[in-house]
Amino acid sequence: MYKQIIVIRTDLDMGKGKLAAQCCHASLGAYKKTLREHPEIVKHWEMEGQQKVVLKVTSGEQLIENFQHAKDKGFPVDMIRDAGRTQIDPGTITCFAVGPWKEEELDQIYGQLKLL
Amino acid sequence: MYKQIIVIRTDLDMGKGKLAAQCCHASLGAYKKTLREHPEIVKHWEMEGQQKVVLKVTSGEQLIENFQHAKDKGFPVDMIRDAGRTQIDPGTITCFAVGPWKEEELDQIYGQLKLL
Repeated sequence: MYKQIIVIRTDLDMGKGKLAAQCCHASLGAYKKTLREHPEIVKHWEMEGQQKVVLKVTSGEQLIENFQHAKDKGFPVDMIRDAGRTQIDPGTITCFAVGPWKEEELDQIYGQLKLL
Repeated sequence: MYKQIIVIRTDLDMGKGKLAAQCCHASLGAYKKTLREHPEIVKHWEMEGQQKVVLKVTSGEQLIENFQHAKDKGFPVDMIRDAGRTQIDPGTITCFAVGPWKEEELDQIYGQLKLL
Protein backbone atom coordinates (compact mmCIF):
# COMPACT_ATOMS: atom_id res chain seq x y z
CA MET A 1 0.00 0.00 0.00
CA TYR A 2 1.11 3.50 -0.84
CA LYS A 3 0.07 6.88 0.50
CA GLN A 4 1.06 10.50 0.32
CA ILE A 5 1.51 12.39 3.55
CA ILE A 6 1.33 16.13 3.99
CA VAL A 7 2.75 17.68 7.16
CA ILE A 8 1.62 21.20 8.05
CA ARG A 9 2.37 23.74 10.79
CA THR A 10 -0.50 24.72 13.07
CA ASP A 11 1.34 27.62 14.73
CA LEU A 12 0.97 30.12 11.87
CA ASP A 13 -2.62 31.23 12.33
CA MET A 14 -3.58 30.36 8.76
CA GLY A 15 -7.28 30.23 7.94
CA LYS A 16 -8.77 26.93 6.75
CA GLY A 17 -8.67 27.95 3.09
CA LYS A 18 -5.08 29.17 3.23
CA LEU A 19 -4.10 25.98 5.02
CA ALA A 20 -5.84 23.80 2.42
CA ALA A 21 -4.19 25.72 -0.44
CA GLN A 22 -0.76 25.21 1.13
CA CYS A 23 -1.44 21.48 1.40
CA CYS A 24 -2.41 21.45 -2.29
CA HIS A 25 0.90 23.12 -3.21
CA ALA A 26 2.85 20.46 -1.31
CA SER A 27 0.72 17.58 -2.57
CA LEU A 28 1.17 18.58 -6.19
CA GLY A 29 4.89 19.26 -5.77
CA ALA A 30 5.59 15.88 -4.17
CA TYR A 31 3.40 14.15 -6.77
CA LYS A 32 5.43 15.67 -9.62
CA LYS A 33 8.71 14.73 -7.99
CA THR A 34 7.60 11.15 -7.36
CA LEU A 35 6.27 10.89 -10.91
CA ARG A 36 9.69 11.88 -12.28
CA GLU A 37 11.70 9.62 -9.97
CA HIS A 38 9.37 6.66 -9.33
CA PRO A 39 6.54 6.59 -11.90
CA GLU A 40 5.68 2.99 -11.03
CA ILE A 41 4.89 3.99 -7.44
CA VAL A 42 2.56 6.77 -8.62
CA LYS A 43 0.77 4.26 -10.84
CA HIS A 44 0.21 1.82 -7.96
CA TRP A 45 -0.95 4.61 -5.66
CA GLU A 46 -3.46 5.87 -8.24
CA MET A 47 -4.83 2.37 -8.73
CA GLU A 48 -5.26 2.00 -4.97
CA GLY A 49 -7.27 5.24 -4.65
CA GLN A 50 -4.43 7.72 -4.07
CA GLN A 51 -4.66 8.00 -0.32
CA LYS A 52 -3.57 11.37 1.13
CA VAL A 53 -3.18 12.03 4.84
CA VAL A 54 -2.61 15.41 6.47
CA LEU A 55 -0.54 15.45 9.68
CA LYS A 56 0.39 18.33 11.93
CA VAL A 57 3.40 19.83 13.70
CA THR A 58 3.40 22.85 15.97
CA SER A 59 6.55 24.73 14.92
CA GLY A 60 8.90 25.48 12.05
CA GLU A 61 11.66 23.54 13.84
CA GLN A 62 9.48 20.42 13.97
CA LEU A 63 8.60 20.88 10.32
CA ILE A 64 12.26 21.06 9.29
CA GLU A 65 13.22 18.11 11.49
CA ASN A 66 10.49 15.92 9.98
CA PHE A 67 11.30 17.09 6.46
CA GLN A 68 14.93 16.13 7.05
CA HIS A 69 13.96 12.58 8.03
CA ALA A 70 12.39 12.08 4.61
CA LYS A 71 15.37 13.67 2.85
CA ASP A 72 17.79 11.42 4.75
CA LYS A 73 15.86 8.36 3.59
CA GLY A 74 15.87 9.59 -0.01
CA PHE A 75 12.07 9.82 -0.22
CA PRO A 76 10.61 12.24 -2.82
CA VAL A 77 9.60 15.30 -0.82
CA ASP A 78 8.57 18.89 -1.47
CA MET A 79 8.68 21.74 1.06
CA ILE A 80 6.49 24.80 0.58
CA ARG A 81 7.72 28.31 1.27
CA ASP A 82 4.83 30.75 1.07
CA ALA A 83 5.04 33.82 -1.16
CA GLY A 84 3.45 35.67 1.75
CA ARG A 85 0.91 37.73 -0.17
CA THR A 86 -1.74 36.93 2.45
CA GLN A 87 -1.85 36.10 6.15
CA ILE A 88 1.83 35.18 6.77
CA ASP A 89 5.31 36.62 6.17
CA PRO A 90 7.00 36.07 2.79
CA GLY A 91 9.31 33.07 2.75
CA THR A 92 7.70 31.32 5.71
CA ILE A 93 7.88 27.53 5.44
CA THR A 94 4.37 26.15 5.92
CA CYS A 95 4.27 22.45 5.03
CA PHE A 96 5.82 19.62 3.08
CA ALA A 97 4.55 16.48 1.38
CA VAL A 98 6.19 13.09 0.85
CA GLY A 99 5.42 10.69 -1.94
CA PRO A 100 3.28 8.77 -2.66
CA TRP A 101 5.52 6.27 -0.94
CA LYS A 102 5.32 2.91 0.84
CA GLU A 103 2.91 3.20 3.75
CA GLU A 104 4.95 1.16 6.22
CA GLU A 105 8.12 3.17 5.58
CA LEU A 106 6.23 6.42 6.08
CA ASP A 107 4.60 5.13 9.25
CA GLN A 108 8.01 4.27 10.71
CA ILE A 109 8.99 7.93 10.51
CA TYR A 110 5.68 9.75 10.81
CA GLY A 111 3.55 7.29 12.78
CA GLN A 112 3.77 9.44 15.91
CA LEU A 113 2.50 12.64 14.27
CA LYS A 114 -1.16 13.47 14.84
CA LEU A 115 -3.78 13.92 12.12
CA LEU A 116 -4.63 17.57 11.42
CA MET B 1 -2.92 35.52 -15.11
CA TYR B 2 -4.01 31.98 -14.34
CA LYS B 3 -5.23 30.34 -11.18
CA GLN B 4 -6.72 27.12 -9.97
CA ILE B 5 -9.85 27.26 -7.86
CA ILE B 6 -11.08 24.61 -5.50
CA VAL B 7 -14.69 24.73 -4.30
CA ILE B 8 -15.57 22.75 -1.18
CA ARG B 9 -18.71 22.05 0.87
CA THR B 10 -18.78 23.32 4.44
CA ASP B 11 -21.95 21.43 5.42
CA LEU B 12 -20.33 18.00 5.82
CA ASP B 13 -18.68 18.36 9.22
CA MET B 14 -15.27 17.35 7.89
CA GLY B 15 -12.28 18.02 10.12
CA LYS B 16 -9.56 20.38 8.85
CA GLY B 17 -7.29 17.54 7.77
CA LYS B 18 -10.03 15.67 5.93
CA LEU B 19 -11.05 18.90 4.25
CA ALA B 20 -7.47 19.67 3.19
CA ALA B 21 -7.00 16.12 1.83
CA GLN B 22 -10.20 16.44 -0.23
CA CYS B 23 -8.92 19.72 -1.68
CA CYS B 24 -5.64 17.99 -2.59
CA HIS B 25 -7.56 15.25 -4.44
CA ALA B 26 -9.44 17.86 -6.48
CA SER B 27 -6.39 20.03 -7.08
CA LEU B 28 -4.35 17.12 -8.42
CA GLY B 29 -7.24 15.80 -10.53
CA ALA B 30 -7.89 19.15 -12.20
CA TYR B 31 -4.16 19.69 -12.69
CA LYS B 32 -3.82 16.37 -14.54
CA LYS B 33 -6.83 17.10 -16.70
CA THR B 34 -5.59 20.58 -17.60
CA LEU B 35 -2.13 19.20 -18.33
CA ARG B 36 -3.60 16.72 -20.81
CA GLU B 37 -5.93 19.23 -22.51
CA HIS B 38 -4.07 22.55 -22.18
CA PRO B 39 -0.41 21.97 -21.28
CA GLU B 40 0.51 25.54 -22.28
CA ILE B 41 -1.83 26.93 -19.62
CA VAL B 42 -0.27 24.73 -16.94
CA LYS B 43 3.17 25.99 -17.98
CA HIS B 44 2.14 29.65 -17.68
CA TRP B 45 0.46 29.03 -14.33
CA GLU B 46 3.56 27.32 -12.95
CA MET B 47 5.75 30.19 -14.09
CA GLU B 48 3.44 32.66 -12.37
CA GLY B 49 3.60 30.83 -9.03
CA GLN B 50 0.69 28.40 -9.45
CA GLN B 51 -1.93 30.31 -7.51
CA LYS B 52 -4.58 28.14 -5.82
CA VAL B 53 -7.67 29.55 -4.16
CA VAL B 54 -10.14 27.63 -2.01
CA LEU B 55 -13.78 28.77 -2.09
CA LYS B 56 -16.78 27.48 -0.21
CA VAL B 57 -20.38 26.46 -0.78
CA THR B 58 -22.84 25.31 1.86
CA SER B 59 -24.62 22.38 0.18
CA GLY B 60 -24.29 19.57 -2.33
CA GLU B 61 -26.80 21.33 -4.61
CA GLN B 62 -24.64 24.46 -4.70
CA LEU B 63 -21.59 22.33 -5.38
CA ILE B 64 -23.23 20.61 -8.35
CA GLU B 65 -24.61 23.89 -9.71
CA ASN B 66 -21.18 25.54 -9.60
CA PHE B 67 -19.51 22.47 -11.06
CA GLN B 68 -22.00 22.52 -13.93
CA HIS B 69 -21.09 26.14 -14.76
CA ALA B 70 -17.50 25.10 -15.39
CA LYS B 71 -18.59 22.05 -17.40
CA ASP B 72 -20.87 24.21 -19.55
CA LYS B 73 -17.97 26.52 -20.35
CA GLY B 74 -15.72 23.56 -21.22
CA PHE B 75 -13.20 24.32 -18.47
CA PRO B 76 -11.08 21.39 -17.21
CA VAL B 77 -12.70 20.34 -13.95
CA ASP B 78 -12.56 17.44 -11.52
CA MET B 79 -15.23 16.55 -8.94
CA ILE B 80 -14.33 14.46 -5.90
CA ARG B 81 -16.58 11.73 -4.56
CA ASP B 82 -15.26 10.51 -1.23
CA ALA B 83 -14.64 6.80 -0.64
CA GLY B 84 -16.21 7.37 2.77
CA ARG B 85 -13.79 5.40 4.89
CA THR B 86 -13.74 8.20 7.49
CA GLN B 87 -16.10 10.92 8.68
CA ILE B 88 -18.64 10.96 5.81
CA ASP B 89 -20.83 8.54 3.86
CA PRO B 90 -19.35 6.63 0.87
CA GLY B 91 -19.98 8.36 -2.43
CA THR B 92 -20.58 11.82 -0.97
CA ILE B 93 -19.46 14.60 -3.31
CA THR B 94 -17.16 16.92 -1.35
CA CYS B 95 -15.44 19.38 -3.69
CA PHE B 96 -14.28 20.13 -7.20
CA ALA B 97 -11.37 22.02 -8.74
CA VAL B 98 -11.10 23.94 -12.00
CA GLY B 99 -7.96 24.53 -13.97
CA PRO B 100 -5.55 26.22 -13.78
CA TRP B 101 -7.53 28.52 -16.02
CA LYS B 102 -7.75 32.21 -16.96
CA GLU B 103 -8.36 34.24 -13.82
CA GLU B 104 -10.88 36.64 -15.36
CA GLU B 105 -13.00 33.84 -16.79
CA LEU B 106 -13.05 32.06 -13.44
CA ASP B 107 -13.92 35.29 -11.63
CA GLN B 108 -16.92 35.82 -13.91
CA ILE B 109 -18.41 32.56 -12.69
CA TYR B 110 -17.00 32.19 -9.20
CA GLY B 111 -16.38 35.79 -8.16
CA GLN B 112 -19.35 35.77 -5.80
CA LEU B 113 -18.24 32.70 -3.85
CA LYS B 114 -16.52 33.35 -0.51
CA LEU B 115 -13.04 32.21 0.45
CA LEU B 116 -12.99 29.20 2.76
